[in-house]
Amino acid sequence: MKRRDERDSIGCMEVPEDAYYGVHSLRAKRNFDITRRPLEADFIKTLVEVKKAAAMANFQAGDLPGVKYRAIMQACDFILADNLMEEFIVDAIQGGAGTSTNMNANEVIANKALEMMGVEKGRYDILHPNDDVNMSQSTNDVIPTAGKITAVKLLEKAKSELQALSEALERKSAEFRDVIKMGRTQLQDAVPISMGQVFHAYGSVVKRDIERFSKAQQELCTVNIGGTAIGTSVNAGKTYFHAIPHCIFQTTGVRIFQAEDLIDATQNLDSFVYVSGIIKTCAVSLSKISNDLRLLSSGPRTGLNEIHLPPMQNGSSIMPGKINPVIPEVVSQVAFNIIGNDTTITMAAEAGQLELNAFEPVLFFKLFESIGTLERAVNTFTKNCICGIQVNKQACHDLLDRSVGVVTALCPQIGYNKASELAKRSLQTGEPIRSILLDEQVLSKSMIDTLLNPVHLVRPLRS
Amino acid sequence: MKRRDERDSIGCMEVPEDAYYGVHSLRAKRNFDITRRPLEADFIKTLVEVKKAAAMANFQAGDLPGVKYRAIMQACDFILADNLMEEFIVDAIQGGAGTSTNMNANEVIANKALEMMGVEKGRYDILHPNDDVNMSQSTNDVIPTAGKITAVKLLEKAKSELQALSEALERKSAEFRDVIKMGRTQLQDAVPISMGQVFHAYGSVVKRDIERFSKAQQELCTVNIGGTAIGTSVNAGKTYFHAIPHCIFQTTGVRIFQAEDLIDATQNLDSFVYVSGIIKTCAVSLSKISNDLRLLSSGPRTGLNEIHLPPMQNGSSIMPGKINPVIPEVVSQVAFNIIGNDTTITMAAEAGQLELNAFEPVLFFKLFESIGTLERAVNTFTKNCICGIQVNKQACHDLLDRSVGVVTALCPQIGYNKASELAKRSLQTGEPIRSILLDEQVLSKSMIDTLLNPVHLVRPLRS
Amino acid sequence: MKRRDERDSIGCMEVPEDAYYGVHSLRAKRNFDITRRPLEADFIKTLVEVKKAAAMANFQAGDLPGVKYRAIMQACDFILADNLMEEFIVDAIQGGAGTSTNMNANEVIANKALEMMGVEKGRYDILHPNDDVNMSQSTNDVIPTAGKITAVKLLEKAKSELQALSEALERKSAEFRDVIKMGRTQLQDAVPISMGQVFHAYGSVVKRDIERFSKAQQELCTVNIGGTAIGTSVNAGKTYFHAIPHCIFQTTGVRIFQAEDLIDATQNLDSFVYVSGIIKTCAVSLSKISNDLRLLSSGPRTGLNEIHLPPMQNGSSIMPGKINPVIPEVVSQVAFNIIGNDTTITMAAEAGQLELNAFEPVLFFKLFESIGTLERAVNTFTKNCICGIQVNKQACHDLLDRSVGVVTALCPQIGYNKASELAKRSLQTGEPIRSILLDEQVLSKSMIDTLLNPVHLVRPLRS
Amino acid sequence: MKRRDERDSIGCMEVPEDAYYGVHSLRAKRNFDITRRPLEADFIKTLVEVKKAAAMANFQAGDLPGVKYRAIMQACDFILADNLMEEFIVDAIQGGAGTSTNMNANEVIANKALEMMGVEKGRYDILHPNDDVNMSQSTNDVIPTAGKITAVKLLEKAKSELQALSEALERKSAEFRDVIKMGRTQLQDAVPISMGQVFHAYGSVVKRDIERFSKAQQELCTVNIGGTAIGTSVNAGKTYFHAIPHCIFQTTGVRIFQAEDLIDATQNLDSFVYVSGIIKTCAVSLSKISNDLRLLSSGPRTGLNEIHLPPMQNGSSIMPGKINPVIPEVVSQVAFNIIGNDTTITMAAEAGQLELNAFEPVLFFKLFESIGTLERAVNTFTKNCICGIQVNKQACHDLLDRSVGVVTALCPQIGYNKASELAKRSLQTGEPIRSILLDEQVLSKSMIDTLLNPVHLVRPLRS
Repeated sequence: MKRRDERDSIGCMEVPEDAYYGVHSLRAKRNFDITRRPLEADFIKTLVEVKKAAAMANFQAGDLPGVKYRAIMQACDFILADNLMEEFIVDAIQGGAGTSTNMNANEVIANKALEMMGVEKGRYDILHPNDDVNMSQSTNDVIPTAGKITAVKLLEKAKSELQALSEALERKSAEFRDVIKMGRTQLQDAVPISMGQVFHAYGSVVKRDIERFSKAQQELCTVNIGGTAIGTSVNAGKTYFHAIPHCIFQTTGVRIFQAEDLIDATQNLDSFVYVSGIIKTCAVSLSKISNDLRLLSSGPRTGLNEIHLPPMQNGSSIMPGKINPVIPEVVSQVAFNIIGNDTTITMAAEAGQLELNAFEPVLFFKLFESIGTLERAVNTFTKNCICGIQVNKQACHDLLDRSVGVVTALCPQIGYNKASELAKRSLQTGEPIRSILLDEQVLSKSMIDTLLNPVHLVRPLRS
Repeated sequence: MKRRDERDSIGCMEVPEDAYYGVHSLRAKRNFDITRRPLEADFIKTLVEVKKAAAMANFQAGDLPGVKYRAIMQACDFILADNLMEEFIVDAIQGGAGTSTNMNANEVIANKALEMMGVEKGRYDILHPNDDVNMSQSTNDVIPTAGKITAVKLLEKAKSELQALSEALERKSAEFRDVIKMGRTQLQDAVPISMGQVFHAYGSVVKRDIERFSKAQQELCTVNIGGTAIGTSVNAGKTYFHAIPHCIFQTTGVRIFQAEDLIDATQNLDSFVYVSGIIKTCAVSLSKISNDLRLLSSGPRTGLNEIHLPPMQNGSSIMPGKINPVIPEVVSQVAFNIIGNDTTITMAAEAGQLELNAFEPVLFFKLFESIGTLERAVNTFTKNCICGIQVNKQACHDLLDRSVGVVTALCPQIGYNKASELAKRSLQTGEPIRSILLDEQVLSKSMIDTLLNPVHLVRPLRS
Repeated sequence: MKRRDERDSIGCMEVPEDAYYGVHSLRAKRNFDITRRPLEADFIKTLVEVKKAAAMANFQAGDLPGVKYRAIMQACDFILADNLMEEFIVDAIQGGAGTSTNMNANEVIANKALEMMGVEKGRYDILHPNDDVNMSQSTNDVIPTAGKITAVKLLEKAKSELQALSEALERKSAEFRDVIKMGRTQLQDAVPISMGQVFHAYGSVVKRDIERFSKAQQELCTVNIGGTAIGTSVNAGKTYFHAIPHCIFQTTGVRIFQAEDLIDATQNLDSFVYVSGIIKTCAVSLSKISNDLRLLSSGPRTGLNEIHLPPMQNGSSIMPGKINPVIPEVVSQVAFNIIGNDTTITMAAEAGQLELNAFEPVLFFKLFESIGTLERAVNTFTKNCICGIQVNKQACHDLLDRSVGVVTALCPQIGYNKASELAKRSLQTGEPIRSILLDEQVLSKSMIDTLLNPVHLVRPLRS
Repeated sequence: MKRRDERDSIGCMEVPEDAYYGVHSLRAKRNFDITRRPLEADFIKTLVEVKKAAAMANFQAGDLPGVKYRAIMQACDFILADNLMEEFIVDAIQGGAGTSTNMNANEVIANKALEMMGVEKGRYDILHPNDDVNMSQSTNDVIPTAGKITAVKLLEKAKSELQALSEALERKSAEFRDVIKMGRTQLQDAVPISMGQVFHAYGSVVKRDIERFSKAQQELCTVNIGGTAIGTSVNAGKTYFHAIPHCIFQTTGVRIFQAEDLIDATQNLDSFVYVSGIIKTCAVSLSKISNDLRLLSSGPRTGLNEIHLPPMQNGSSIMPGKINPVIPEVVSQVAFNIIGNDTTITMAAEAGQLELNAFEPVLFFKLFESIGTLERAVNTFTKNCICGIQVNKQACHDLLDRSVGVVTALCPQIGYNKASELAKRSLQTGEPIRSILLDEQVLSKSMIDTLLNPVHLVRPLRS
């Protein structure tokens, strides 16, 4: 393979001649063989969009000559059309606060721009990765800015999946409106509820998660672009500084705001901890719903068996005919992963020192994984599970009929102690509550009918 | 000791005759000897306030006779005046979703009310812990409601400590405005910054935390009171239902709202995960500031020594004269504890099943510990550390003078590669950047003066 | 209140005249109003035992005069007889790597010793907290040493509770040996198992936990006593150094070993992370068993209802007759707390810097809480739950009878595909597997009897 | 693309004609588009080795005809020679306790075996994925067994990297033996230490980690193979059962043992929590060392600057000449990730229910990631950081000289209070301790020389 020489402050190094990346990327690749996973594609693209925006702002400021500007723009557009992704060779987890990622982008853009200018790769005297592509920027402002914007975009996708889930749950709620069944607290028979109410509750918590995702996005729209190395804006000119937010809006479609205190915004990653907390909150809700669905569909013969989940695949390599609740199971696993990622994100944020947090790479790696897996888990949850759920009316009815929890409704009339006695007697003898009541003549038959009417029991305030 | 007999559905049990608690509390105490710590006093009081509010609403609804109503009110007021705290005997961590806590309150209120009615304790035929004190309520709505309101109050106290911290940091920022020093990224010399900017950044992140605490409070003001056992409002009448929010406002001073979907609000603890995430975010920020202060004050002879923390106590039992940064150290430890508590809270919330989450007690235990320790850690941080910090101007000046990071400011003029060379030469030879520049004649003396002016370096956009 | 003056390097301070603690403790108390919880009593006592051992070793080395030695010994013995606990006034979470705890002990011992010498408190010129009580020691070796020994003792108590639990589970296993029931994987009907096997499995995992607790104790027996400030043993003489391990064995009953590399042993808290991992592993197992018991006892009318847990208290303030699985619920909550504590312990250990880890106080606070709550949770689990469990033979039998999972046993004869068909047909039609088999004539009646014999199904290798 | 029809109990599905995977794999792929990452290659291969071993044992038992046996063996060997990896199409996180992974292996092996028998793919009537390849097995025993063996192998690789690290640290310890420097506790000047001792301590903790990794491997060698579906060994014959451990040793090289209680071993994942705790402990130690190296190499002009890390890449896109401690930074990030993974693993293990834990896939995913990234991080740590570290003797000497911590050594002679005074005076006036001592005439000159001799100070017990 042909190679070209490139230099940095460590020394000289051979780079494959046709590579768009350069010496910085290559050193980083050798230093960090860690996860063997590339950077998230969405993150690379957003970073390129940010660098494109910087070129626009530098051109507007008169600092970047037109010929370089146009070449950089074209190079960025070429990459954004889904090209050269394999030239981003640095590992997802890397030392150096993202400098390797930023330099990888600077080098790929520079060499593609040089190519577009008809110059051979590596001729940085003509267009330089640092002086031109990275002009007015530092890793320390472009990387967190690109990271935040990436998260905003990923959250948008996740929100739309959550929206679809919430709608599917509402449809099921309407469908199961009139199926009254026994509610359970602490897995013990409690009081009646309708299956419609059960699914409505699932929908309600998901809606709350969607609202929180919007809060997360809002938090992330405040960025430190223009702060350069440590937030003092060294090497960023006034014109560039004021132009860059709008340029970023133009390239990314996301309206961002420069933090009032750029030094704070450069060294603190608290926003990501807050956002990860919101994602984790959603994961917790989804796992709870999944657990419920597994409980409600348990059986078919030796479980609760109140609902049927759509069968998605054979459940066992040894047990014929077994079908398992694989979709809820995968949702819970994604939740566990997100919860663990939250710990990692927290520790990375806590480890920041003085003017910078050097641990952003692992934070972004886990944050993007959290949002991405959540989005895709919700997608399969909605499509392959919720939409196909059927209720087992007979089982719901039979279980309700057998239960004694309806005595609760008698307390206002007969008192807690008397009701306890009735419950105990019913449980011991198997005699239904109604017949005991009639037998004991504590209440009139019409009063009994009213109090034990299941419809009344599940919506007492409406009756 | 004299004893009275009390009965529950398990059987009969002897209770000390002068005890205000009853059989339920006593069984719970025996079942749960776990942490050996009582419930948080603020939580007990808020619970009593909620029960007082319920009595008001039940009275308004005509369900609670005046004589019982007045006795309950008086009993509650008596407890709220800081009495009978030792009668709350159940452990902070308990099985049963808080039923033991609720029954402990029901029993203490009932017996105190009986006493006020001139009746001996235990005469539940006259005023009953369940039928009267707990009328229209369930553990499953009063406990989460009281828990949320308690958290709202504790967050208010914490906010006011954070406010004081933020103001102290701002005062230090003003005081240190003109002390220019070297900024460090990844603990390596970067570019200049002023000590005022450093403390301003600390203040900025704290302000953001305060705003998030307000969001947390807002989230917590939606409660499930009136939902009773599982959110279907069984045994809660319409009048009571509509009256209770205002009554709670009257007794607690906190304006709460009933959730639209009470079933969801009864079974899901997602709000607490969100709130714990916000508290954790604050803890992370505080720990980061604490770490910085320990770094900046390291030494005095073999560290950075740029600031002096006020000496608070001898630092060592063996090393004379040693003073340690004990206050920042305790702040970080509180942060670690809060981060661990967040894991516990997350798991408790995730473990909810069907119509209820049975794991609220541990969630509240850790949530209140998180907020309380944060509040007190911030108090000592402000008072015993931040307010007394002094800057070591000489050290800041000397270190700045020795550093080579100022070459960054030359990049726009001489390019990244040339600047790298200068930096390397200065580091190897020890020659100051300025003299190398003059020697190499790459820039005019006046340009050098402008570019390397420290005031310009820390606020380039202003000049 | 009368006061005496005490001095430290910060200045002069008034101490209550009758206080055994001194200026260091008092400053610490004022600096650290954090958890409002005292140090663990077991930890205080072990620390006093270690200091008593140090006095013995110093006396043997000829460095501590007999009169001082005897006074210190008497003072320690007095405290160890459960006195003066209220003189340990420092908060469980404190800055300063435990110096406040150590000085609190030094001061209380010194003043009690002075009193025993007939001298008034505070006369440190006669017997000094640092020079005499703390002779040859540093906070940095006595605190971790006392912490490890405390943990060894607490683990011993926990082991004996786990032993009792394991025996109770084995008794239940024997009792339920012949009750065959349906096994469930992923909450779906699988293949038969006996209830005896179920409880045997619970016992097996607990036994493994006990073995791991022994590994934890072994790990903790290597301590850094004699390393003093940073492990170089500055100010510890040779005689003392070699005598101290045996003296500690004499005072604590725990045989400890000095680490080969005392510098490592002083700065690294990895052993505690390992030990916390072991405790957490046990917590996970206990929570899993608890969850199972809640599932198996769910109902009574609308759940699995295969076992009955002993009723321990009323389950609801609103629902009469309800009994909840409160003991398993508290066990899971303790597990969640331990898991959160593990995160805290991990972060504290990770935060160590250079020659010391300053974050030991929070680590010990959570470690002792983890072991203590585990011990007590296991106690109530065994006594108030496991020992009283009854099996519902009828339910086990009925559910087994209804299930189709027995088809698995037919696979070797008829193949997975054919068996799947049978299972499907049985589930759809409700026809029992046996009658379908007879109907389809795929297997002889005697073969069917053999293959579907439940005893064979649960112990196939034995038949 | 040509397709073949395949059937399962859900229905019929088209599979690409040249695919070795079948209908089960394809359904799983569609159900679980979650991480978009394949299974760990080492895991796939170990699983194939386990299935090869099962074929051997089944052949020995006379249950698998020779022609099928040979075809399966050849198919497995073909895959183990690094072929068909792309046929393993299921996602790393999947529902169903690993059934999809197991069936993917069963199908690929079956179709490759069919091909080797000269039969077209999909002719399961001739050789069946379940009846033949999966004979005597269940997902529930082969997957955890393969998972444990994979972990044993990965731990072995990690151990050898840790061994290399420990040796590199020891070499540095020897190299820096005589460089005496100031020790720091809580980042404050403490007492002297040699740089050799510092690196020796790092080596010591790593050695302890290696020992713990061996304990982890030992724990993992107890597996549940032969337990089939729920540990009752349904469908596993006696001959197979007793032959399989040795067959697994033959195919994997790992000597495994069948658990005494296979039911326990099937449902409990506690061993993985224990093992993850051990890996986390190592991560904590590595992060602590990394943090120290970053502190000690901070500067070069405004930090401690006691050591130089080898420069590995440019440190900044904006700051010329800046070199950052990128290797220690990546090590800490890997540690944060491992700590987060431990939370996920813990939650997955805790979520097991009754006879099975359905959440193994995410557990394995994170466990393998933890071990793999640790191994590779240690590799770069040793090679690209530790081996090239140089000490800055001058800086160490100068800082030692300036410090006052040596007064500690005077305590036994002059007492803590007097020593405190001297330290205070030296810090205030800048006068060296030695000259103050001479001036005050508290000790003879020769005594001063002895006590303050740095060699004595760092190894007092040897002198």
